[in-house]
Amino acid sequence: MTYKSDIEIAREAQKKPIQEIGAKLDIPTEHLLPYGHDKAKVSQEFINSVQDRPNGKLILVTAINPTPAGEGKTTTTVGLGDGLNRIGKKAAICIREASLGPNFGMKGGAAGGGYAQVVPMEDMNLHFTGDFHAITSAHSLLAAMIDNHIYWGNEQDIDIRRVVWRRVVDMNDRALRQINVSLGGVANGFPREGGFDITVASEVMAILCLARDLSDLQRRLGDMIVAYRHDKTPVFCRDIKADGAMTVLLKDAMQPNLVQTLENNPAFVHGGPFANIAHGCNSVTATTTALKLADYVVTEAGFGADLGAEKFMNIKCRKAGLAPSCVVVVATVRAMKMNGGVAKADLGAENVEAVKKGCANLGRHVANVKGFGVPVVVAINHFVTDTEAEVEAVRAYVAEQGSEAILCQHWAKGSEGTEALARRVAEIADADMANFAPLYPDEMPLFEKIETIAKRIYHADEVLADKKVRDQLRAWEEQGYGNLPICMAKTQYSFSTDPNLRGAPTGHSVPVREVRLSAGAGFVVVICGEIMTMPGLPRVPSAEAIHLNEAGQIEGLF
Amino acid sequence: MTYKSDIEIAREAQKKPIQEIGAKLDIPTEHLLPYGHDKAKVSQEFINSVQDRPNGKLILVTAINPTPAGEGKTTTTVGLGDGLNRIGKKAAICIREASLGPNFGMKGGAAGGGYAQVVPMEDMNLHFTGDFHAITSAHSLLAAMIDNHIYWGNEQDIDIRRVVWRRVVDMNDRALRQINVSLGGVANGFPREGGFDITVASEVMAILCLARDLSDLQRRLGDMIVAYRHDKTPVFCRDIKADGAMTVLLKDAMQPNLVQTLENNPAFVHGGPFANIAHGCNSVTATTTALKLADYVVTEAGFGADLGAEKFMNIKCRKAGLAPSCVVVVATVRAMKMNGGVAKADLGAENVEAVKKGCANLGRHVANVKGFGVPVVVAINHFVTDTEAEVEAVRAYVAEQGSEAILCQHWAKGSEGTEALARRVAEIADADMANFAPLYPDEMPLFEKIETIAKRIYHADEVLADKKVRDQLRAWEEQGYGNLPICMAKTQYSFSTDPNLRGAPTGHSVPVREVRLSAGAGFVVVICGEIMTMPGLPRVPSAEAIHLNEAGQIEGLF
Repeated sequence: MTYKSDIEIAREAQKKPIQEIGAKLDIPTEHLLPYGHDKAKVSQEFINSVQDRPNGKLILVTAINPTPAGEGKTTTTVGLGDGLNRIGKKAAICIREASLGPNFGMKGGAAGGGYAQVVPMEDMNLHFTGDFHAITSAHSLLAAMIDNHIYWGNEQDIDIRRVVWRRVVDMNDRALRQINVSLGGVANGFPREGGFDITVASEVMAILCLARDLSDLQRRLGDMIVAYRHDKTPVFCRDIKADGAMTVLLKDAMQPNLVQTLENNPAFVHGGPFANIAHGCNSVTATTTALKLADYVVTEAGFGADLGAEKFMNIKCRKAGLAPSCVVVVATVRAMKMNGGVAKADLGAENVEAVKKGCANLGRHVANVKGFGVPVVVAINHFVTDTEAEVEAVRAYVAEQGSEAILCQHWAKGSEGTEALARRVAEIADADMANFAPLYPDEMPLFEKIETIAKRIYHADEVLADKKVRDQLRAWEEQGYGNLPICMAKTQYSFSTDPNLRGAPTGHSVPVREVRLSAGAGFVVVICGEIMTMPGLPRVPSAEAIHLNEAGQIEGLF
Repeated sequence: MTYKSDIEIAREAQKKPIQEIGAKLDIPTEHLLPYGHDKAKVSQEFINSVQDRPNGKLILVTAINPTPAGEGKTTTTVGLGDGLNRIGKKAAICIREASLGPNFGMKGGAAGGGYAQVVPMEDMNLHFTGDFHAITSAHSLLAAMIDNHIYWGNEQDIDIRRVVWRRVVDMNDRALRQINVSLGGVANGFPREGGFDITVASEVMAILCLARDLSDLQRRLGDMIVAYRHDKTPVFCRDIKADGAMTVLLKDAMQPNLVQTLENNPAFVHGGPFANIAHGCNSVTATTTALKLADYVVTEAGFGADLGAEKFMNIKCRKAGLAPSCVVVVATVRAMKMNGGVAKADLGAENVEAVKKGCANLGRHVANVKGFGVPVVVAINHFVTDTEAEVEAVRAYVAEQGSEAILCQHWAKGSEGTEALARRVAEIADADMANFAPLYPDEMPLFEKIETIAKRIYHADEVLADKKVRDQLRAWEEQGYGNLPICMAKTQYSFSTDPNLRGAPTGHSVPVREVRLSAGAGFVVVICGEIMTMPGLPRVPSAEAIHLNEAGQIEGLF
């Protein structure tokens, strides 16, 4: 049997006009702002008009620690959404937008895979509805206004050595990581050090994804710290008077984007913050809007559950007043094998013992999620080489832990492959079994919050931080930022800070290298290890092969 | 009598769905790719399908040298388009897109004014359909790929001191004019000097506006010179293998945008290259498409006729095989007075003598345009303080020169105010009186082309250029670029290179400071005086006042 590639399947999609997709959620045509025939934004006016409706059930899809074998989190999110629709439920999915730049480096990102995809795939990997461009513009405007402020007399007394607002571009461009700006003489300003991050790393992105509405957006933008004065007090975006114009630039981008799955079910694709220095979830406006329009909303979080689900719970749900009814943890037999010590090249051969050994990783994620008071179902995302014995090993392991694992075949079969999962998830959600609570209270001191995450989620023994870091956290507490949640930036490949430590390690330490305050987004970023906020291109970038073929189709993007 | 502001009038616009506007040009709904309800792109497929149709008549609107009094070139373009529709003609207009960045500096740009405007004004001054963002992305990708090429071994042997491809951002940001990149150590590349221009200054913008179709676009992108090797031979974009991916990024942006005038007539708004280092006209694809769909197409060129119309004729028409049937030169009584020596503060008082004196500027533009073999009509764009005697003075002067000047009141009355102009223009166009020819043949040597423009259009005595400039021109001729047209970059305020020399100066010299080759766009840029390709923000940027009001409307942008 041969399989079609994701792009082949996506090109065969029988897309419906976006107005028909909107109609499934009872969105009137005039409130769908179309971008072409297959994409639309939902109007702010309509969103405002549905605020009094009850919420649907929120279902989070998360996963084990990612391995090179792949786990299929987005694919399962799409498959579960289609499965819920298949069994007659009114369901929508909410996923993140893709970043433009990385598509030109390594082979680019689809939205799902196989017969569980969101379309139009090409647009979603290129400019889509322009949200990321709007974020780049808003970010760039603030950067220009800061240097302009300094140029025209520096009334705020900004210390040019302490401008913390970097610039952004949605491109992998290592040459811009560290630059000197304002060179060339008096007319170009005061020379200083600067640099660019990729757009998704912008605090503006995190804010767009957490803001409840346009006035909340503007307040948060104003709250961002952009520099420090010579007396070390913070200079806010508001002091530079950029928050109003930035809000204007982001007005359209704040409206969630509606597209469709291959099975013509509604999919919101909106926002895409980093999952390390930010919280890695799609926008609050998309999720809250979807909850007003659908009975079931399936969404996902970044990376594995230790980073993604933790932030979804402790940052997004806490801040947006959301509570998930059920969590799906995605695992694959292949990833279990890798967690059990098998090399990627050997994944083809049956190895039940390795599967059993690797299940420790899955087991800890399941237990962690239950710790938030939310029921868990494990989705075994089926791969063609999986043997029955291997699948059974996962199922048995999960049953032993008191949970249920369901085999899913959405990649090959679409919603037919997730019917069982959908029925079980709907049953759990309908039973209102969840009793959600974040892991720590707002009033817990910042360092204690870090320790709570490290010990309860990562199962580490201790958090290592020098005096400078601890003093900084205390200083922020004194300045009134003590009630913020923590945003952990560590490797996604392990519960520990060592990417090679698979499985369920214990006895490790979490060294904190640096802490950063995202005062507008509303969290304290705790950096453990190297975090790259501006990727580079590889020796042979995929851009070299990307082109239009003679039929005008895009080749090489996927 | 009090007058409404442009923005007040624009907000009262009774816009029709863009599908209805498209229907006026017989564009089927499925070939209009909507962006919201009031903007659309015309599909490439539809454009391909109409190529065998005959062309409508092309009418160029140009103007005297701009003065602080304003001349209303875009306003007249819109007014004439509406006027032609009013008298029963099937007419469309083609104008340029606005640049985002400058709107946050000085008070931003409307599209037309009074009752002769194109809407939606806010969108057109913000992200519109994302064309400029696509250009920024394509430009940025090439920049990243050049430094990446150097980083991974520099197979092309690029001299890092001779990378001529700068970066761009659509923002006024003087701090980025001159920068050092790739600092911070081995992982970030080889340190070198660089800098950013504003997006509209990108050669990609000029190419997008001159390319006939997507394959012509890719060929031109590939032809761009991005750096020189240590042996001083040029490195082309094609050598970096970026042309395919850039074309993919520009695929949607190549499709012309359709919007509407306040009177619901079709308006193509597409492309916006600089009018000094580039040719300053809307896109060839928009103009050629409009000519297939409408019987009359009214378009405009940048700045005054000495720069704008000259480039429209010698670059755009020559390259795209276009020939205008009639040219409208816009003049105002106030601008005539300023050309006659009156200060801006004194423009309110009647001064017929100053009007007469200032008419020399108008007269020379009219004669210049006639030199291209195209009939001319002068449009006197009426201002409320103009007296009958002043208007009569302009009319009499133009009549003496053997042309006709028609008073227009579109600002106050919309198409009612351009009926007479529209009838006369249609009459001239229908009579096929034009016998268009560019000013110089392709095979004329480059320096002679410069002299021809300077003498025939600017009425200068001589062109001054040092040996380095002349040698460079000769070198390009030897490399096969001798057949390219010239793109003059000089002040728009005077026929001379001295911005303070109004009227119709003679006996002056044109000093050439620098020449640049835009090998992809296909012209040689001749720089006379300071040309700013990255503006700065003023002491109090308009961004400080831009915000959303409580009704969600944008304030301060206009």
